[in-house]
Amino acid sequence: MSKENQPASALSSPRFCNTGTFMRMPRMTELEGLDFAVVGVPFDTASSYRTGSRFGPSAIRNISSLIKPNNVNLQVNVLESLKGADCGDVNVVPGWIHETFENIENELKPILDADVIPIILGGDHSISLANLRAIAKKHGPVAMVHFDSHADINDKVFGMPHNHGTPFRRAHEEGLIDPDHVIQIGMRGSLYDPDEHRVAEEELGFRLIAAHKVREMGIEGLIKEIKDRVGDKKVFLTFDIDFVDPAYCPGTGTPEVGGFTTLETLTILRELKDLNFVGCDIVEVAPQYDPSEMTAFMAANVAFEFISMLAAKKNK
Amino acid sequence: MSKENQPASALSSPRFCNTGTFMRMPRMTELEGLDFAVVGVPFDTASSYRTGSRFGPSAIRNISSLIKPNNVNLQVNVLESLKGADCGDVNVVPGWIHETFENIENELKPILDADVIPIILGGDHSISLANLRAIAKKHGPVAMVHFDSHADINDKVFGMPHNHGTPFRRAHEEGLIDPDHVIQIGMRGSLYDPDEHRVAEEELGFRLIAAHKVREMGIEGLIKEIKDRVGDKKVFLTFDIDFVDPAYCPGTGTPEVGGFTTLETLTILRELKDLNFVGCDIVEVAPQYDPSEMTAFMAANVAFEFISMLAAKKNK
Amino acid sequence: MSKENQPASALSSPRFCNTGTFMRMPRMTELEGLDFAVVGVPFDTASSYRTGSRFGPSAIRNISSLIKPNNVNLQVNVLESLKGADCGDVNVVPGWIHETFENIENELKPILDADVIPIILGGDHSISLANLRAIAKKHGPVAMVHFDSHADINDKVFGMPHNHGTPFRRAHEEGLIDPDHVIQIGMRGSLYDPDEHRVAEEELGFRLIAAHKVREMGIEGLIKEIKDRVGDKKVFLTFDIDFVDPAYCPGTGTPEVGGFTTLETLTILRELKDLNFVGCDIVEVAPQYDPSEMTAFMAANVAFEFISMLAAKKNK
Amino acid sequence: MSKENQPASALSSPRFCNTGTFMRMPRMTELEGLDFAVVGVPFDTASSYRTGSRFGPSAIRNISSLIKPNNVNLQVNVLESLKGADCGDVNVVPGWIHETFENIENELKPILDADVIPIILGGDHSISLANLRAIAKKHGPVAMVHFDSHADINDKVFGMPHNHGTPFRRAHEEGLIDPDHVIQIGMRGSLYDPDEHRVAEEELGFRLIAAHKVREMGIEGLIKEIKDRVGDKKVFLTFDIDFVDPAYCPGTGTPEVGGFTTLETLTILRELKDLNFVGCDIVEVAPQYDPSEMTAFMAANVAFEFISMLAAKKNK
Amino acid sequence: MSKENQPASALSSPRFCNTGTFMRMPRMTELEGLDFAVVGVPFDTASSYRTGSRFGPSAIRNISSLIKPNNVNLQVNVLESLKGADCGDVNVVPGWIHETFENIENELKPILDADVIPIILGGDHSISLANLRAIAKKHGPVAMVHFDSHADINDKVFGMPHNHGTPFRRAHEEGLIDPDHVIQIGMRGSLYDPDEHRVAEEELGFRLIAAHKVREMGIEGLIKEIKDRVGDKKVFLTFDIDFVDPAYCPGTGTPEVGGFTTLETLTILRELKDLNFVGCDIVEVAPQYDPSEMTAFMAANVAFEFISMLAAKKNK
Amino acid sequence: MSKENQPASALSSPRFCNTGTFMRMPRMTELEGLDFAVVGVPFDTASSYRTGSRFGPSAIRNISSLIKPNNVNLQVNVLESLKGADCGDVNVVPGWIHETFENIENELKPILDADVIPIILGGDHSISLANLRAIAKKHGPVAMVHFDSHADINDKVFGMPHNHGTPFRRAHEEGLIDPDHVIQIGMRGSLYDPDEHRVAEEELGFRLIAAHKVREMGIEGLIKEIKDRVGDKKVFLTFDIDFVDPAYCPGTGTPEVGGFTTLETLTILRELKDLNFVGCDIVEVAPQYDPSEMTAFMAANVAFEFISMLAAKKNK
Repeated sequence: MSKENQPASALSSPRFCNTGTFMRMPRMTELEGLDFAVVGVPFDTASSYRTGSRFGPSAIRNISSLIKPNNVNLQVNVLESLKGADCGDVNVVPGWIHETFENIENELKPILDADVIPIILGGDHSISLANLRAIAKKHGPVAMVHFDSHADINDKVFGMPHNHGTPFRRAHEEGLIDPDHVIQIGMRGSLYDPDEHRVAEEELGFRLIAAHKVREMGIEGLIKEIKDRVGDKKVFLTFDIDFVDPAYCPGTGTPEVGGFTTLETLTILRELKDLNFVGCDIVEVAPQYDPSEMTAFMAANVAFEFISMLAAKKNK
Repeated sequence: MSKENQPASALSSPRFCNTGTFMRMPRMTELEGLDFAVVGVPFDTASSYRTGSRFGPSAIRNISSLIKPNNVNLQVNVLESLKGADCGDVNVVPGWIHETFENIENELKPILDADVIPIILGGDHSISLANLRAIAKKHGPVAMVHFDSHADINDKVFGMPHNHGTPFRRAHEEGLIDPDHVIQIGMRGSLYDPDEHRVAEEELGFRLIAAHKVREMGIEGLIKEIKDRVGDKKVFLTFDIDFVDPAYCPGTGTPEVGGFTTLETLTILRELKDLNFVGCDIVEVAPQYDPSEMTAFMAANVAFEFISMLAAKKNK
Repeated sequence: MSKENQPASALSSPRFCNTGTFMRMPRMTELEGLDFAVVGVPFDTASSYRTGSRFGPSAIRNISSLIKPNNVNLQVNVLESLKGADCGDVNVVPGWIHETFENIENELKPILDADVIPIILGGDHSISLANLRAIAKKHGPVAMVHFDSHADINDKVFGMPHNHGTPFRRAHEEGLIDPDHVIQIGMRGSLYDPDEHRVAEEELGFRLIAAHKVREMGIEGLIKEIKDRVGDKKVFLTFDIDFVDPAYCPGTGTPEVGGFTTLETLTILRELKDLNFVGCDIVEVAPQYDPSEMTAFMAANVAFEFISMLAAKKNK
Repeated sequence: MSKENQPASALSSPRFCNTGTFMRMPRMTELEGLDFAVVGVPFDTASSYRTGSRFGPSAIRNISSLIKPNNVNLQVNVLESLKGADCGDVNVVPGWIHETFENIENELKPILDADVIPIILGGDHSISLANLRAIAKKHGPVAMVHFDSHADINDKVFGMPHNHGTPFRRAHEEGLIDPDHVIQIGMRGSLYDPDEHRVAEEELGFRLIAAHKVREMGIEGLIKEIKDRVGDKKVFLTFDIDFVDPAYCPGTGTPEVGGFTTLETLTILRELKDLNFVGCDIVEVAPQYDPSEMTAFMAANVAFEFISMLAAKKNK
Repeated sequence: MSKENQPASALSSPRFCNTGTFMRMPRMTELEGLDFAVVGVPFDTASSYRTGSRFGPSAIRNISSLIKPNNVNLQVNVLESLKGADCGDVNVVPGWIHETFENIENELKPILDADVIPIILGGDHSISLANLRAIAKKHGPVAMVHFDSHADINDKVFGMPHNHGTPFRRAHEEGLIDPDHVIQIGMRGSLYDPDEHRVAEEELGFRLIAAHKVREMGIEGLIKEIKDRVGDKKVFLTFDIDFVDPAYCPGTGTPEVGGFTTLETLTILRELKDLNFVGCDIVEVAPQYDPSEMTAFMAANVAFEFISMLAAKKNK
Repeated sequence: MSKENQPASALSSPRFCNTGTFMRMPRMTELEGLDFAVVGVPFDTASSYRTGSRFGPSAIRNISSLIKPNNVNLQVNVLESLKGADCGDVNVVPGWIHETFENIENELKPILDADVIPIILGGDHSISLANLRAIAKKHGPVAMVHFDSHADINDKVFGMPHNHGTPFRRAHEEGLIDPDHVIQIGMRGSLYDPDEHRVAEEELGFRLIAAHKVREMGIEGLIKEIKDRVGDKKVFLTFDIDFVDPAYCPGTGTPEVGGFTTLETLTILRELKDLNFVGCDIVEVAPQYDPSEMTAFMAANVAFEFISMLAAKKNK
């Protein structure tokens, strides 16, 4: 990637200058030759408790200017290894779920058709259904690694089929994901349905590793489970920021205590660098509950680690 | 009203005890004999910019414990003159506009059928359409006094017919309001359609008095205009908290600078005490932008002045 | 418990509707047949540093709507196993300690007399003295498990006998607790009296395990110590939210760094499910220092775990 | 006053250096030769709603570093005209009203005995009773100018005689103020006792000008009323920050909408420069509700105007 | 201007999508044919009290998405009448004043050379010196309208010549402004130099109208004064957001109470529409003290009114 | 140390009284006989991202009133073992780096000359260069223990030699530190220069242990590394608060996720009690991003542990 398409180095241009895109990358509509594209989906209509994640993409982009291109742990320079851009936001329709899902699917299509890997910044978790529709249209049913404190497999919430608590039930029904290669990690907190974890495994055929099970198997054990489950399938990463403990990521819609640290989270992610990722979304950042911008910053770091994994895999 | 149904006096019970209802009134489902009922509609799905007004009813109720029953200006004790209750929240369907509007209409019906005047705490301004549907089913097309910085008469927003910017266009189409007796007050700020004020008056037949026109005619002049416009018709009050300047009411979804003070606002309201009110809604309180609770407190005061007007009229 | 007395499921009624009671349970005054009762004590007069915990009960109740009835770890549905209610707030007397203590004792009496287990939401830690007076009148001197970063055994603070730093010295003097079965856990931070820990053990006869001692013995070792100390005695749980590290629970009056995570805390609590609890209080939540509501949410979770333990014991 | 006792000029020493005293004046215990002394009373035990004013003196002092010595409107340099000091805080007894009142009285005594005019920073309004006890012991019953949104003349609150809603009833009973020369200004908001304003005037013999009466008579008329009422008597100024509208001063315990602007407030104060002031208190600043420090800054400005009036009178 | 260069209408694209430029205008480097260019100068190194205005340009741009193109009061559509762009931020050098001033001057030069009117978003007020250097190089000494609560004419602050309190002393010395046509409006608050206002008028030859003088002459009188002073000279507008009262604009570095409302401010600005503006800067927005974004929003409105004046003048 | 020079015990004087100095110690200018002196350097001009650390010393001092004199872990009473004072703030020159560095050096000189150990509260990390200049002038090149998430060894930032990212490159060049005895701990996060860690070790001759290396060697291993590296040399401690994870210390200029807990941090520090410390600085506390005061409180605790180590060493 030529220098002129790279963000300015913070050693010469202050990081609070010319913000508004992820890592101050160029905002582009030309997809040709890109390796990855950052896309915002500022949609919070399907939130069951706190709203406000419509401002998530903007908050993540602003604070992402703190991130520099070299990943010490994975030993890559993401901007030298890959060509990326910020493609702006999907034209969501606030208040209207179906119409927004259509727009998401339509706007992701050209990105996927150009063989560009989308990195989608939410927004509430309902958008993963639309993301997976676009992904599956391109790639067929995919494997999925799902970090979250909730399984999001309700059939209906408030009597309705679409909500940020239902996307993976719908994705399963629509054949967008391959249950044999789906793994859900980090579920915790109180439940309405005491059988929810059993339902995920027995009815839907997913692998669900609750937070207390992660504690039993350890981080090493978990990493092995994920790799075994996914294998070499095309895989989508869906990362709900409430996987991380609210001490680290307070700015989210439905927090659960007893979660994971950012260190644990990044340690797990980095070990997935050999997976065959075809896209990811990072969701549920609600800036109004994030007075010190820590949550948005962690979301930006998750995106950076994902890009770093793409770079590491390419460089191999 | 018997003492046991009255809220505890703050002289004997601290005002931060047993909060959760408006003015710490009893939460009741029995409507028989009530003069007014406070109802929450915690719905923010139709917001075009900031969400969060779903937490408006809770915030208004919590801070309303600061309000005491005697209105010095109107010389009434609202709890001695009237019998009221807090009937809780409408069972909204977050993310789904039509379904929520149906629930609002259905849950307001028994209140209106029992000749109880509803005082509805929003929620975003889209709910006024549902409120007016319920009102019109009971009373036929009503007069309307509308305080707001926006006229909310768009035909479509984001291509859709329902949004917090469209309720009064829809109410007009559905014949819920009598245009000859509708008055809109306080509109200001930049516009997409330069003809919006003309449309309100010429196409819809409303009376619209923009904020700068209020400054020209003065508060006295405005009060006369309102009274003349409404006459003795049954009238609905719809109060968008962004009528008040954001210095006084920062916690709202789409603020506009150059607005009215709380003193001006209360002065206007108190002079409407002889109107024939059949209900009101107070909308667009977004607590996450209201760090000192001033906005919720002003909303509670508007509700209190409305109740006081009912009491003053009854006592006449 | 019949369904009509249960809180609405968040799958059908949004969790921000009709808040104001713990887990949106019914507010009841009828105690007959209840297993447990949630009671607020919004009192912060005895705070030595930050005030504001008078708004603790309201904050805990509001955010508790996020908690659902099934406890995955203890495998119980608390609302199916037990009958509970929110009995509202004790009529405290702000600014007056003796008068408030009397009211607390008087208002807890009928609850205890009806064999209902009280779950008391503070308020500052001084209220534990009044709570224990009521408990001891019913049950005689009780065992006590005390989680806190401070021992709260000062003789006088500011020259006065009642303060949130003195309740357990007073409770000891008044014979409300049985020292042989008292255990204090988590003390840390700088001290005025270098001998405080020794005083607790040698003068008062308590068992005090400072935070750094917990680190030495490990969580497993601690759990064994607690069970050994309490045995099968009737036991009161007093939980100061500052036991948890301020990263997790910033909204408290006198924070101390180097504390426990929420995961550690919940892990310990769940292992106490066989103890013979007769009541608990959860204190020192100061919402004005809790911008993301994490502290109140953890306090709600502690209450939920306590209720779950009651349910698990009953179901055994 | 020699230069070495003056605060550093902000033109040479940044205003965020060495804060912690009012206007960065020297902290002194030597009273000899002082014209005025700033004293903090960080006490919020008698607050009926929000606590937190115990941090008021610290917040006022910190932001007071923004104030420079020349008052343009009154044409005085306060530090050249007068000799002042910050004498620190009264040793309050948190949680204990009587004990604190004694300490206030005792610690103000040497200041008054040295003919130094005290400028007392609260703290809740209950402290005015103690302040007036000290003042009256020195000067006999004094005239009083009282700016507030509440009259604070309740007989009992929560059944108790001392509370921030009762000080002027008590001061009247104790003969500390001369009713014929007491004037209360700015009362507004809802009331428990509809006769409260009449009680102030008829039972207590005060002059009470409610906020809406100020609007009728105008600022000029009000100033004349104050001067007429006080005459040349020794007069105490008691200023509750909630006199000012919460848009301007959100950080207070019991706000009331529809209040006065800071411009109106300062305009009134400056016209009182010929009164014979013997002291003042400025109360009810609650920093936790003051995210932009505006309330504390206005309180600092009121203190500065008071000092300026002393200087202007001396220079005459 | 062709539609493709216009920002999306908020009726079709939500205003929280694709933010990051002023009014969501295109970010352009091509200056040819532009009427105006928005430029950020995120520099706060020369602040004397609160820092943080380096985040001002970003905050103003984000909230400016709320502004729509039609100005009702001036009856113009700014985007139809004029061609504008957001040219991003000057490459400031945090911590280094001289180097930053050079960059400002260099980066404004091509804009001015292309006959594009710059609208500069600060940043602290020190940047006005660099702005005026660039302006004067193009236009010679210009007239200046200066709204502020401070005159900013100190010779040295902390012993140094450059600071946000010195720009207009320096500009005068460097001959960048024509004193006979300079007018300073709104000065208030305490001063170090009691003669400052006299110095401005007698030594520097400016016209300075302190806030209390504005009150005496009235808004109408002030407008006439400004027009008379400026005449038909090329004029630069410098607007310090602390001209507006902190109730309306709390997020600023050195607030002064007793200021102007947003209504008064906009009323004055709109009457200046016939002046011959060659540029403007809007400075001292400090977002960390602006929890409800009101200050940034007012700054965006001032920019919008300035653009509207340009449009109105062009359309005449 | 005589009692009159000790801060009041919080058991007799509330901790929110008479704040403004570290641990409410006396503010002194007399250095004779002191063991340590707390000095503030409220300077944030050299910050690359968020400013605001100029308010760090004030925030740390205010919350430090929570700290009591006995350190349980190190078994010392710091105020009985040592004689200390708060010497106020260095007269910084906001906006001017060289001038400030000179003032720092000049004002530290008499402290060092009097054999008093300085405990310096920043301020941004650039000040360490000036601190080390003063230290080296007294002691010659010193060993250094550096806790931070960044190595701060850039050659230039924004083309300039002084910035909070360059102090240790400069200190190395100026011979202020002895590279063979320098150890940097905790570096993490993305980098501009992928070789930075290698540069530190190979070019500069430091020992740098990145955060992930600390995880590999464990806390015990790290402690041993530090002791081995420093030996018995005179050593300066420089502690950047962003060493601690932002969950624990959100209020800082350039946070990095995946950091250390406060428990880990204090555990490490306490084990360094036998080192031969000649001074320390604690930097980068930015209170505007620290809504619950946790960051300032942790900084105060680090200072307290440092003082405790001095006391423990003296008592040995």
